[in-house]
Amino acid sequence: MNWKHWTIAASLLGGLSGWAGADEGMWLYNQPPAQQLKERHQFEAKSDWLDHLMKSSVRFNVGGSGSFVSADGLVMTNHHVAADAIQKLSGPGKDLITQGFMAKTRAQELPCVDLELNVLQSIEDVSPKIQSAIQPGMDDSQAEKAKRAAINTLEQEESKRTGLRCDVVTLFKGGAYHVYRYKRYTDVRLVFAPELGIAFFGGDSDNFEYPRQCLDVTFFRVYEDGKPVKPPHFLQWAPQGVKEGDLVFVSGHPGRTSRLNTVSHLQFFRDVQYPFILNYLRRLEVLLNTYGERSAENHRQAQDERFGVQNGRKARLGGLQGLQDPAVMAEKRAREELLRNSVAADPSLKATYGSAWSEVDQALLTLRLIFVRHALLEQARAFNSDLFHYARVLVRRSQEMQKPNADRLREFGDANKQSLEQDLFSTAPHYAEFDEAKLSNSLALMMELLGADDPMVKSVLNGKSPRQRASELVRGTRLSEVAVRKQMASMTPEALKASSDPMIALAWLVEGEARALRDQYDKKVSLVMEQAYAKIARASLGAAGGKSLYPDATFTLRLAFGIVSGYAGLPYTTDFASLYAKTDAHQGQPPFLLPKRWVMARKKVNLKTPFDFVCTADIIGGNSGSPVVNRAGQVVGLIFDGNLESLVLDFQYSEQQARALAVDGRAIIEALRKVYDCISLADELQRGK
Amino acid sequence: MNWKHWTIAASLLGGLSGWAGADEGMWLYNQPPAQQLKERHQFEAKSDWLDHLMKSSVRFNVGGSGSFVSADGLVMTNHHVAADAIQKLSGPGKDLITQGFMAKTRAQELPCVDLELNVLQSIEDVSPKIQSAIQPGMDDSQAEKAKRAAINTLEQEESKRTGLRCDVVTLFKGGAYHVYRYKRYTDVRLVFAPELGIAFFGGDSDNFEYPRQCLDVTFFRVYEDGKPVKPPHFLQWAPQGVKEGDLVFVSGHPGRTSRLNTVSHLQFFRDVQYPFILNYLRRLEVLLNTYGERSAENHRQAQDERFGVQNGRKARLGGLQGLQDPAVMAEKRAREELLRNSVAADPSLKATYGSAWSEVDQALLTLRLIFVRHALLEQARAFNSDLFHYARVLVRRSQEMQKPNADRLREFGDANKQSLEQDLFSTAPHYAEFDEAKLSNSLALMMELLGADDPMVKSVLNGKSPRQRASELVRGTRLSEVAVRKQMASMTPEALKASSDPMIALAWLVEGEARALRDQYDKKVSLVMEQAYAKIARASLGAAGGKSLYPDATFTLRLAFGIVSGYAGLPYTTDFASLYAKTDAHQGQPPFLLPKRWVMARKKVNLKTPFDFVCTADIIGGNSGSPVVNRAGQVVGLIFDGNLESLVLDFQYSEQQARALAVDGRAIIEALRKVYDCISLADELQRGK
Repeated sequence: MNWKHWTIAASLLGGLSGWAGADEGMWLYNQPPAQQLKERHQFEAKSDWLDHLMKSSVRFNVGGSGSFVSADGLVMTNHHVAADAIQKLSGPGKDLITQGFMAKTRAQELPCVDLELNVLQSIEDVSPKIQSAIQPGMDDSQAEKAKRAAINTLEQEESKRTGLRCDVVTLFKGGAYHVYRYKRYTDVRLVFAPELGIAFFGGDSDNFEYPRQCLDVTFFRVYEDGKPVKPPHFLQWAPQGVKEGDLVFVSGHPGRTSRLNTVSHLQFFRDVQYPFILNYLRRLEVLLNTYGERSAENHRQAQDERFGVQNGRKARLGGLQGLQDPAVMAEKRAREELLRNSVAADPSLKATYGSAWSEVDQALLTLRLIFVRHALLEQARAFNSDLFHYARVLVRRSQEMQKPNADRLREFGDANKQSLEQDLFSTAPHYAEFDEAKLSNSLALMMELLGADDPMVKSVLNGKSPRQRASELVRGTRLSEVAVRKQMASMTPEALKASSDPMIALAWLVEGEARALRDQYDKKVSLVMEQAYAKIARASLGAAGGKSLYPDATFTLRLAFGIVSGYAGLPYTTDFASLYAKTDAHQGQPPFLLPKRWVMARKKVNLKTPFDFVCTADIIGGNSGSPVVNRAGQVVGLIFDGNLESLVLDFQYSEQQARALAVDGRAIIEALRKVYDCISLADELQRGK
Repeated sequence: MNWKHWTIAASLLGGLSGWAGADEGMWLYNQPPAQQLKERHQFEAKSDWLDHLMKSSVRFNVGGSGSFVSADGLVMTNHHVAADAIQKLSGPGKDLITQGFMAKTRAQELPCVDLELNVLQSIEDVSPKIQSAIQPGMDDSQAEKAKRAAINTLEQEESKRTGLRCDVVTLFKGGAYHVYRYKRYTDVRLVFAPELGIAFFGGDSDNFEYPRQCLDVTFFRVYEDGKPVKPPHFLQWAPQGVKEGDLVFVSGHPGRTSRLNTVSHLQFFRDVQYPFILNYLRRLEVLLNTYGERSAENHRQAQDERFGVQNGRKARLGGLQGLQDPAVMAEKRAREELLRNSVAADPSLKATYGSAWSEVDQALLTLRLIFVRHALLEQARAFNSDLFHYARVLVRRSQEMQKPNADRLREFGDANKQSLEQDLFSTAPHYAEFDEAKLSNSLALMMELLGADDPMVKSVLNGKSPRQRASELVRGTRLSEVAVRKQMASMTPEALKASSDPMIALAWLVEGEARALRDQYDKKVSLVMEQAYAKIARASLGAAGGKSLYPDATFTLRLAFGIVSGYAGLPYTTDFASLYAKTDAHQGQPPFLLPKRWVMARKKVNLKTPFDFVCTADIIGGNSGSPVVNRAGQVVGLIFDGNLESLVLDFQYSEQQARALAVDGRAIIEALRKVYDCISLADELQRGK
């Protein structure tokens, strides 16, 4: 392989190739950005410093990040990451989301219903093992099966050998495979949550905006054998806070980026995927608004999901606005052309990588054909119901469990058994009326998108209107009862097929086409893209001329770094005074209405205490709840959002205007001491125990 | 022509054919349901009784109904019909929608900005004149032109001859043409509006629901030559209210129904039109919510439009749920088959009417092809901006005014000159940021639906993102200034083309394709459907066997009748006590928060006073603000809504559950006297002067 043509290309390949200019990068812990940190920030990332930070970081499987912050198993995350768990601890007349929660003693700490936390212990590159499973001459179907078998088997062996949760992660969209080994925690108890009114002060209106004043924090405590766990690693609280220009680090789980994507793939996002999802989200948002407005109890039931939907809508809208900006696309196109021209100019590179872009296009053609049906039937967007979700898992699980582990769909592999059952046997409360409203809405969506005469639509609706059908399904099923789900989980497919439960029957009805779509997706889209992007990634690696690279985000632990820095004339931090000034400017109207405790504490708090600050670290959704630490690895803040300008980070990094938003550690302490009178919790944080 | 085969069919043709069973019907004043009223209700509708009611009825050109209710020109309508006018009288810090308005003296009555009221004086059947304009052998293009010329000329001649506003109305979707002659009033002043909190108590949540407690009323006074007008006809206030079982009449302007539509046409609604509009409305609703949430002033700017959008969304959703109900469709299909079979069975009928259904299908095929582009470019849904609306009117008007009246697009005919200028030169306030947000959103919609590479999309966006383009258009145009619009209105097309105003330039850019789409729509969809539906209407008339028929709604004056009657176990009326009980049940949370005056008046009002009542009269959107009168023609209530079950009335009438909702006249008097202390207004209503 000859890389001599690449020197010119390298300087322009930031973003597209995953090569990191500036403070860019969501770095692998086993391939840290040592050189960048040394050159740009005169910081030496020693291995024990990295190991400590890695093992203090926590993954929330609902889709967020966190960290151990005391010797007694205290875990810090965002309120909006914790909201799913808090919602499941609430009920009619007991709205812990709105009212907040404070355990005065350990005995009062509330055990969560189905929360699973993971702590990464080690990473290993297993690329050769997985890649060698696909032999030359295999067709798509054989290749997909061989790869899946290799992954399932490796995960099973690893988790048996280590006793840990072991996930094989696809990096660089197929360029590499690493195994991530996690310690699992499932006894997690709620310690402290502020009121939604301060955790999400400014609501959807202020979401993704800066300046900002949110105390978006929640504390849990992890237990094992009924006692608080003593984690081998946890983060100390920084005695001093950040100031402008400080170097900081973010350790967390960015969910997904698309920086390596081809221009054609981004166009697919722009023209098909994002508009589809946005329409879906807007439709659901209107439904959740109208459902919630009917009564205080309805509002309570819908509020957590409503936040998620609004958050997704605003994030996607920002992303789509980036994709619809010809300047953004022109830049992506210029970088892609540079790489493609370089590949084309070298016969050896051309032979190895030249076909990658047309292979991506081929996969996109297939995806375009199946996109809507796949989204509706396999991703179950036509069946927006927790109860259908259980039915789907039960029906599919019954078939998969009859196969050897190697042959199963990945989520049914032995390595994932515990996590799957954590979800399937959850004791979270159900609300029939709410489920029915969502199912009715999504069945109608299916009818609109596939047409009333589509055979699947006709079978699913069975001669009823979407509303009537949703009603008979939700009222008729018994899947809201855990005991029923447990009983069904032990049935063979044949026994389950004989069940009279209408939701189970619906899941069976859809199963054939849904599986066929899944199969087509896995073989003709996912696998083809993985193989094509592996080539593009390697071509980019070559173009980077030996510089280290980071892969697109995969909801696995990454290290980001950056500078505490204002932008566009805005200072790097807000303070408590600005919180009160903002509520005054809005006459205390929601979403700028402060909880009573905050109104009463106005005279007590130090108004100069910093509230939320911004830095240039490279983050994305999933990083929510990540600790922000200083050079000494001590907590100075808590990531909770990005600004509007950061919403294109999905596609390309920019440190001009894009900023990560964090709750300042000093705001957390000030609030715990002066607003909530939670002295022992503040002491635990500051003393580390 | 032989109608002998029709006797069996007739009994099943209610709804589809426009034949009225039960209390069905939106009747023409020149073809009143005399027989039904006599047979069913022993009521004789004498011509002076009808004439008085007709000439007391008022049309609001923003899309609603009203009536004269005093000798001094007082006009009653709904608050939600008046809201557009009230909003235009408001400004930053002066929110008359939320706070309400009461003129203590006539001098305090507030002149509206651009409101036009019409009062119907006479109707004449001019079908032969219009229909004879289309000669055998003409092609679509010639036929469309000839018909338009005949209408434009007749309107011009009639309005010259009578001094009235004269509109030719297409009835039975093409089966008949009548000319409607109206007296126009443009000096209209606001007298009384309650607070939004009571006018729309329960908000979107309670909208289209019953039981209900809304004081959805507003009073205007009409002036001429600076003095209150003395209308020749006005309605007296009933000394007694309604009771269960009473016969009542509704005189108003139902906007549009689709009862004569073929099943294929309803399927087009279900599969294409309704989903498109609902997605459009939901998208706009989310935008208006997020825009309004940012500040009190934003909220004020957006609130009226937000109500309209939410109302439309809920109404359309109800309609779509009806269309998605196989039972509803099966009934429509059965009726259609009966009629089609009867036509097919008679060679003479077959020859005359047999092709009608396939002609409708042909028009639908064309419509399906152009639907999205027509909606975006010609109906300007891609350009959701008041300023673009002005640019479109100016650009189109400059071309049309150079043609003889007979050749112009209808809205630019001489007969419509005054109304058009009332709109074009409106002094209503503009809000640049609001306009920009809506335009940005709609430009992005166009990009999503037509694709980024569409030539028109590229031209419109001109290398910018939708957001950037909306900003430069709104910031760059001067069309918010009335003086600029007046000056441009006098320009030739050539002079206007040379204008540097970017919004004018955009309107020119779109004009070519927009006009081509309009042309295709007018000739290949509208005209073809008119001719086909004329056949279906005549076939149905035959099938009705001499019974009188009513045409689908056309936003022209109609008479409906019905019985005051509860349903599904609900009483026919609510009372003041239930209002207070409901706000209590919702802990006074919005949208169930009562205005202060109502909280304070709780002890003063008679809690047994009826609030809102329901009746079986056949109404639809546009009927809002219609007076409800008793046998003596006296006001007993004010139509303001239908219930959820009435949302399928678009397609078929049902008196089982569908109900019209009215504010009880007694609630209006009680509120004026006890809550608002508006004694002189209450006296004026009850004394008639």
